Amino acid sequence: MRPKLLLGILISLSFLSLRAADKTGEEPVDLVNPFIGTSNFGTTNPGAVCPNGLMSVVPFNVMGSDLNKYDKDARWWSTPYEYHNVYFTGFSHVNLSGVGCPEVGSLLLMPTTGKLDVDYKNYGSTYDKEVAHPGYYSNHLSKYDIKTEVTATPRTSVARFTFPKGESHVLLNLGEGLTNETGAMVRKVSDTEFEGMKLQGTFCYNPQAVFPIYFVMRISKKPSESGYWKKQRAMTGVEAEWDADNGKYKLYKKYQKELSGDDIGVWMNFDTEANEQVEVQMGVSFVSIANARENLNAEQHGKNFDAIYNAARKQWNDDLSRILVEGGTKTERTIFYTALYHTLIHPNILQDVNGQYPAMESNDIRTIKEGNRYTVFSLWDTYRNVHQLLTLVYPERQRDMIRTMIDMYDEHGWMPKWELFGRETYTMEGDPAIPVITDSWLKGLRGYDINKAYEAFRKSALTKGSDNPLRPDNDEYMQKGYVALHEQYDNSVSHALEYYIADNALSRLAAALGKKADAKLFYDRSLGYRHYYSKEYGVFRPIMPDGSFYKPFDPKQGENFEPSPGFHEGNSWNYSFYVPHDVKGLAKLMGGQKSFVDKLQSVFDKGYYDPANEPDIAYPYLFSYFKGDEWRTQVQTRRLLKEYFKNAPEGIPGNDDTGTMSAWAVFNMIGFYPDCPGEPYYTLTSPVFDKVTIRLDKAQWGRDKLVIETSRAQPDDVIISKMELGGKPWNQYRISNEELLKGGVLKFYLKK
Amino acid sequence: MRPKLLLGILISLSFLSLRAADKTGEEPVDLVNPFIGTSNFGTTNPGAVCPNGLMSVVPFNVMGSDLNKYDKDARWWSTPYEYHNVYFTGFSHVNLSGVGCPEVGSLLLMPTTGKLDVDYKNYGSTYDKEVAHPGYYSNHLSKYDIKTEVTATPRTSVARFTFPKGESHVLLNLGEGLTNETGAMVRKVSDTEFEGMKLQGTFCYNPQAVFPIYFVMRISKKPSESGYWKKQRAMTGVEAEWDADNGKYKLYKKYQKELSGDDIGVWMNFDTEANEQVEVQMGVSFVSIANARENLNAEQHGKNFDAIYNAARKQWNDDLSRILVEGGTKTERTIFYTALYHTLIHPNILQDVNGQYPAMESNDIRTIKEGNRYTVFSLWDTYRNVHQLLTLVYPERQRDMIRTMIDMYDEHGWMPKWELFGRETYTMEGDPAIPVITDSWLKGLRGYDINKAYEAFRKSALTKGSDNPLRPDNDEYMQKGYVALHEQYDNSVSHALEYYIADNALSRLAAALGKKADAKLFYDRSLGYRHYYSKEYGVFRPIMPDGSFYKPFDPKQGENFEPSPGFHEGNSWNYSFYVPHDVKGLAKLMGGQKSFVDKLQSVFDKGYYDPANEPDIAYPYLFSYFKGDEWRTQVQTRRLLKEYFKNAPEGIPGNDDTGTMSAWAVFNMIGFYPDCPGEPYYTLTSPVFDKVTIRLDKAQWGRDKLVIETSRAQPDDVIISKMELGGKPWNQYRISNEELLKGGVLKFYLKK
Repeated sequence: MRPKLLLGILISLSFLSLRAADKTGEEPVDLVNPFIGTSNFGTTNPGAVCPNGLMSVVPFNVMGSDLNKYDKDARWWSTPYEYHNVYFTGFSHVNLSGVGCPEVGSLLLMPTTGKLDVDYKNYGSTYDKEVAHPGYYSNHLSKYDIKTEVTATPRTSVARFTFPKGESHVLLNLGEGLTNETGAMVRKVSDTEFEGMKLQGTFCYNPQAVFPIYFVMRISKKPSESGYWKKQRAMTGVEAEWDADNGKYKLYKKYQKELSGDDIGVWMNFDTEANEQVEVQMGVSFVSIANARENLNAEQHGKNFDAIYNAARKQWNDDLSRILVEGGTKTERTIFYTALYHTLIHPNILQDVNGQYPAMESNDIRTIKEGNRYTVFSLWDTYRNVHQLLTLVYPERQRDMIRTMIDMYDEHGWMPKWELFGRETYTMEGDPAIPVITDSWLKGLRGYDINKAYEAFRKSALTKGSDNPLRPDNDEYMQKGYVALHEQYDNSVSHALEYYIADNALSRLAAALGKKADAKLFYDRSLGYRHYYSKEYGVFRPIMPDGSFYKPFDPKQGENFEPSPGFHEGNSWNYSFYVPHDVKGLAKLMGGQKSFVDKLQSVFDKGYYDPANEPDIAYPYLFSYFKGDEWRTQVQTRRLLKEYFKNAPEGIPGNDDTGTMSAWAVFNMIGFYPDCPGEPYYTLTSPVFDKVTIRLDKAQWGRDKLVIETSRAQPDDVIISKMELGGKPWNQYRISNEELLKGGVLKFYLKK
Repeated sequence: MRPKLLLGILISLSFLSLRAADKTGEEPVDLVNPFIGTSNFGTTNPGAVCPNGLMSVVPFNVMGSDLNKYDKDARWWSTPYEYHNVYFTGFSHVNLSGVGCPEVGSLLLMPTTGKLDVDYKNYGSTYDKEVAHPGYYSNHLSKYDIKTEVTATPRTSVARFTFPKGESHVLLNLGEGLTNETGAMVRKVSDTEFEGMKLQGTFCYNPQAVFPIYFVMRISKKPSESGYWKKQRAMTGVEAEWDADNGKYKLYKKYQKELSGDDIGVWMNFDTEANEQVEVQMGVSFVSIANARENLNAEQHGKNFDAIYNAARKQWNDDLSRILVEGGTKTERTIFYTALYHTLIHPNILQDVNGQYPAMESNDIRTIKEGNRYTVFSLWDTYRNVHQLLTLVYPERQRDMIRTMIDMYDEHGWMPKWELFGRETYTMEGDPAIPVITDSWLKGLRGYDINKAYEAFRKSALTKGSDNPLRPDNDEYMQKGYVALHEQYDNSVSHALEYYIADNALSRLAAALGKKADAKLFYDRSLGYRHYYSKEYGVFRPIMPDGSFYKPFDPKQGENFEPSPGFHEGNSWNYSFYVPHDVKGLAKLMGGQKSFVDKLQSVFDKGYYDPANEPDIAYPYLFSYFKGDEWRTQVQTRRLLKEYFKNAPEGIPGNDDTGTMSAWAVFNMIGFYPDCPGEPYYTLTSPVFDKVTIRLDKAQWGRDKLVIETSRAQPDDVIISKMELGGKPWNQYRISNEELLKGGVLKFYLKK
């Protein structure tokens, strides 16, 4: 870890929130290291953002120079920031954290000095003195001797640039960004205000998933001069000779009405005094320029940079303080609170301060009646653990997310799969809304129209494939109970495994709603995974349309994100234990407990386990279904935590997947994990901390806190020797949400 | 001339206007051949336009195929249409007529059939059955079997496409156009309405002269599907592989909010029946989208295609009927009315129906109080004759143009030079607003603030060069009385010659306003041309900064638009007689009448005269300053008319220059020409027609018509033997505007 991490900034803050239980006076917010996950393809970033805020302001360092190791235009690249890159070309506004496809990350704001240059290949700068805290990022631009600082409100941001004496500039680049979509419009409103729009989208190369972002930018100092630029289309022949700007960035010095184009921007010139500070505010909206302005007015009125940062910091500390941990090392607490921080970045609020938001897959603008409208649902990831964490600790947010999902069904006719700013990107597979909402419902979270949700679930479960964007292979699935391999890399087994999990959850929900026939239907369907089991190989194997197994078959084909027939982003080993709703049934197929456990153990021993992606992340808990083998869960989760989660830029094993990897760490570090999405249970494992206090919503859960205490002789004791719940002995390794909350205090005793 | 010219269309029309005096029942409007000047670099076009209308709809055939001889991207090219080109890619909306630089000509509207293709290199079509009349154009697209028709109101247009049965499309291409400026925005308002903006400009490669055009497009039939397209930025490496649309035109099928970009468009699909007609209306504004809509609503409400065309035709016939000609051949009448038609295309009204217009060189929007705000002032051209024609025959328009020019001074601080949609392009040289307004004032046209105009004129005449966009070399001019050659091709002599003419006019105006000292100052300055006279060569010769003449000197250098030291678009021969305000003084310099006349005659005899550009177009009249040599004027003007003005696409000798070449023809054909801009005189020459009746504004001129009658024994009699004015003998070859109008009837007697 480089010394630049976690350098403090000297701002005196007073918090109304409860202090962290740690007796040192350490605040959770101070323990967050936003640089964790910013390398090793974690794709998190150290930018300024509020909890679940729409706005994030991120140092953009992935283009413009061969000095960078990773360039957005030279390879698959999905994050605006990489820790080991060095060439900064501005702050991008509104970004994704922990995703695997290029998207958003535009409205690039850059301060420079000297002769005006609007080409990012020239105006970028190396930097030092990086500082990042929740809601705050700062660096120093070596080339210009400019100190930059950024902070955010939920829908707006402010940058503070400290300039040297001389000719200075602020540039807004609307041509570049992480998104591969192009096209923007900008209009000068006054000497100190610009407004506009930029098109974004094509997430995971989906050409139709595009959407506009609207913005209003205000600057605290009146520029001595300002204008636009636009990269000129290259002409040929004599025309190229006559046009002095041919193929170059042309500066528009007089024109001040709308400018549109693929590669445009705004330049502002200033004469600055030494250490003069200039602040640039940015308000955004996915509805309109007017709303972007209203957001900016509402959230920044009367507040300066420090006040805005203080508010962001307070929001983070309040949120992070819902889980207070004691014990462990400072490094472990840093890993924990940073993971918790990462789980609270997405989904984001989408509606403007006036309640308006773009309806799902529609050109309509709607107004939310209560709560928040959320966006950025990476559900194939987050259905596994993020929503379970939110349900328990942030139930008011989970409720609004469920309402949002049901509203999306109202608007679009389908539940979301991978929703992004009102667009369904159809990234990954399955029907993940079903376990997300079922899990909350079965745990007792209320406040939404479960019957409408059920209607939506039934629709995707029963609609024929050609009319079914969520389950496009539903015809075969409904008819045969599985999906056959029709194209070499059509991920057929992965599709079906997701349907089984969704159908199991739907069966549970149907039962809870008194729909017995449905419950049976979907339960029966959920067991179709058995078709894929190959006795010959002892794993799941793709089935051909004629019913025969796919051959030649290699269960290892698909390692390291190589393509694999039947499996998406993994191989047969990464998927063959992914039947969390019928672990005992699967074990029976595999020859019983010993055979199952040995095979599962071999996955870890032989290095088949992939900690960098979702399909197998619940594997460690499966041991706990079998008496006598529970210790394996505890050993593996503690080992995986230690090996893959670090207080370092490489501290997340792969894409954080909008908090999914981080939620895995959060749950494991406090001692339980929701290993079967859609079922209201956790598997217990050995906690990292001595004491964990989860502050609960009493109205929701009937008590105001859940405490997990751990007693161990040595720090490396990881095996659970005994447990107590509510002061009474507890000897099961799976526990329902209700039991856990009823108990109130869970105590672990660990041994070597 | 090909048979496609002047094919009639069978529309029954009734006119309220006076019938042409011709006894055949022939209407002036029917005599116009809009194809005249559409080849030979005349750069007129056969599109539909109203008199001085902002909107014109022109068949765009200058891009997309090697079938075309002239391609806008392969050479200097300044017109949306060329008669001999064959590949049509749509109708461009708002165009310039007769200019020499690429500009506007965008919003390309194209109907197609079959599989949707949005690449103009593919979707263009050859065509036949071209028909053009004032306010109407039609062709038949060979590739698609579509009949196209277009017509216009002052600020809007409508296209009528007659489709075959099957899959049809209407495309709006916002990426291409004659302008080299790019960037557009479009937004779907409803299934049948789109609105947007396109940037235009860079006239004559002036990078800062850019301006937006706003539009609203409506279509009469609801498309079965519609969307946008945008040319995608070319990516490289793996990204190029992942993006299926990389470097191509991507179709946006779901996104319907604003789309911005360099190369975008709108596509609409239809199922059409055989011969089904679809109408597409387009409203434009240089102020806002809202105004474009208001213009469309106001000018097309309740009117169909035929009603709009009938109204346009009536406007044209009313305007053209202000000069009724009798006699001559039908070809001569066609040439005459087409020339008159061409003089009434520019300047155009600029303000919207609500009176708003973009202020000159400003981002302000202003509202006109009365009359029209005009735009497109190609003053280096039109100060020679167009405004003199307007003053006499269309004084209400000239008055508004003068008001416009004075308002521009109010808004921008300077009189216009080459104004284009609110931008000063600074094309060509001189201070041409001075003779334009002085001419009108001295003739008695009133209704504007002459004192403010005088203030503006004095400012450009006396402000130092560095602060003077109209006369950038004014320091040297004021100090030495001439402009020296500082750079090889800085056009120094041409600059000074224009200043002399402007200063002579300003002197006349000063005298008329009682400003005697100014009158003397400017008159003295106007004689500075003598510095350039080289006794050695007998012509004007550039002067070096040290006062010596430029050498080596070749008076012929600069023929055919080749560059020439000291002279702009010409050589010394084309400029050496251009001292219209001191012809006698020039003659004296050159050695007296005989020497002068012989030299001038040699210009014609040796082919030094260039009929294709402005500097020497008044040469033929200079003979008439000398007693006994007036016949030379008459012979030359009739010869030049016959040789260079034809009823054919090649029928204008060069760029029509927003009607200047055509105005030359109009004046000559009716028998007089304003050869000294800024002086209220005409030189008389032999008319083509037997009788010309100019219908006058009685309130302005004191009588309701001016009649020119001509008596000749043989059609080719061209020498004036005697003249009568108001029934009395008249024996001068120069006549003041006042004398002419007082006389009321001018009768020529011609001989061989």
